Amino acid sequence: MSSYGRYNSHSSQSYAPSAPELPPPPSNYTPPNNTSPPSSNYNHPHAYSYGQQVSSSGYGYPPPSSSVSSSGYSNFPPGTNPDVIRSFQMVDRDRSGFIDDRELQQALSSSFHSFNLRTIRLLMFLFKHPHESLRIGPKEFSELWSCLGHWRGIFERYDKDRSGKIDPLELRDALYGIGYAVPASVLQLLLSKYNDGSNYRRVELGFDSFVECGMIIKGLTDKFKDKDKRYSGSATLSYDDFMSMVIPFLVSYD
Amino acid sequence: MSSYGRYNSHSSQSYAPSAPELPPPPSNYTPPNNTSPPSSNYNHPHAYSYGQQVSSSGYGYPPPSSSVSSSGYSNFPPGTNPDVIRSFQMVDRDRSGFIDDRELQQALSSSFHSFNLRTIRLLMFLFKHPHESLRIGPKEFSELWSCLGHWRGIFERYDKDRSGKIDPLELRDALYGIGYAVPASVLQLLLSKYNDGSNYRRVELGFDSFVECGMIIKGLTDKFKDKDKRYSGSATLSYDDFMSMVIPFLVSYD
Ligand SMILES: [Ca+2]
Ligand SMILES: [Ca+2]
Repeated sequence: MSSYGRYNSHSSQSYAPSAPELPPPPSNYTPPNNTSPPSSNYNHPHAYSYGQQVSSSGYGYPPPSSSVSSSGYSNFPPGTNPDVIRSFQMVDRDRSGFIDDRELQQALSSSFHSFNLRTIRLLMFLFKHPHESLRIGPKEFSELWSCLGHWRGIFERYDKDRSGKIDPLELRDALYGIGYAVPASVLQLLLSKYNDGSNYRRVELGFDSFVECGMIIKGLTDKFKDKDKRYSGSATLSYDDFMSMVIPFLVSYD
Repeated sequence: MSSYGRYNSHSSQSYAPSAPELPPPPSNYTPPNNTSPPSSNYNHPHAYSYGQQVSSSGYGYPPPSSSVSSSGYSNFPPGTNPDVIRSFQMVDRDRSGFIDDRELQQALSSSFHSFNLRTIRLLMFLFKHPHESLRIGPKEFSELWSCLGHWRGIFERYDKDRSGKIDPLELRDALYGIGYAVPASVLQLLLSKYNDGSNYRRVELGFDSFVECGMIIKGLTDKFKDKDKRYSGSATLSYDDFMSMVIPFLVSYD
């Protein structure tokens, strides 16, 4: 797949918290006209392919690092945007070098957008060190900040009608734009979890839910693709692999 | 697997809202002593097998029915416990024949235990008709009631120290008791989502979280097993199947 690995030139440590250079839509793809009714059944030129997706850098969660971050602001990666450091310090009042879920919610809500606690906990769970409790240090915070910057750019680019919300067609196009051709049935099922289930077409995602949807699609697809090296569209998984792939995206405590 | 299908004699429509006849533990299995420290790494005689699980009746979600339930109390299955009908009627104040998430929460909390809204929405999503909005009618309510009755019996049987909570070893034994030998790593990952992630051993599940954990393990395992007819421990899944298996267990709106 020619587009696979498109983002490999970005180091996963050094990308800036800005929108990625998004690839142009494929030449055989006509963007939908948002003023017309949704096209039947999300017909999409590559709706049964997921092989287009790009590599995991920028707007996915980072691979587990080999050691738990120690505390201290010296742990911000060199060249970190001062806004990021300031934002972390603002909420880490006791200077422990770690922030918890509500502190992260506060930091992000003042810089990006309000985030509901469920999304915050999903983000923390995906970004924190696997053996660490539900808190993150400077390194993870910088990575999360960059990731959200990428998603913010995607959100703004694909919110075609500037409504401040992403509708189902905008979501489909956004995921397609970053390389994920998600089957219509899958998107419908996912979106039906964002309202009372009556009509996925009426769902409008704010930035936090958009990030949540995006991270779920990207995260699960990337994990699946790891098991499908030949991009055949199917993979053989052990039961343990299957469960371990899925559980990180499930429930969070409250 | 000799224990597979153990519950097939229970019809999925007619079981009573009581605890199932639980099978005895396997002869080579020594129940852990709850007063001793947790055994290292959840060592379990069958920890890498999931083939023991029983068929989906009683404490799982029902297969999709072929038509959307119409309203009206005549839709309670014949022989439905009058308590179930009374409980439904109590919350369905406008007699529409359907109840929503908050009405379900109210009905269950007065009969079983308080349920957090996240668990309620997961239950509704799993029990409702796939094309129906997030509401259930008499038939689904009866099925859910019976299912919860089964889980209640399991909860009481495996809450060995009568603490009113299920700890990690009690959960492992409960799942084992109903035929699911879940790998230690999988249980640890799941339990780490029920506290701040610091130590899964400290997690204590109330009835609603226990039901949530149980439905997740049972639901995902049963779906996986459907693709692993020979109980080999691995299965080949298409990307669409994989995503469609997983998404029902993910986020719910709030
Ligand atoms: Ca929009
Ligand atoms: Ca207990």
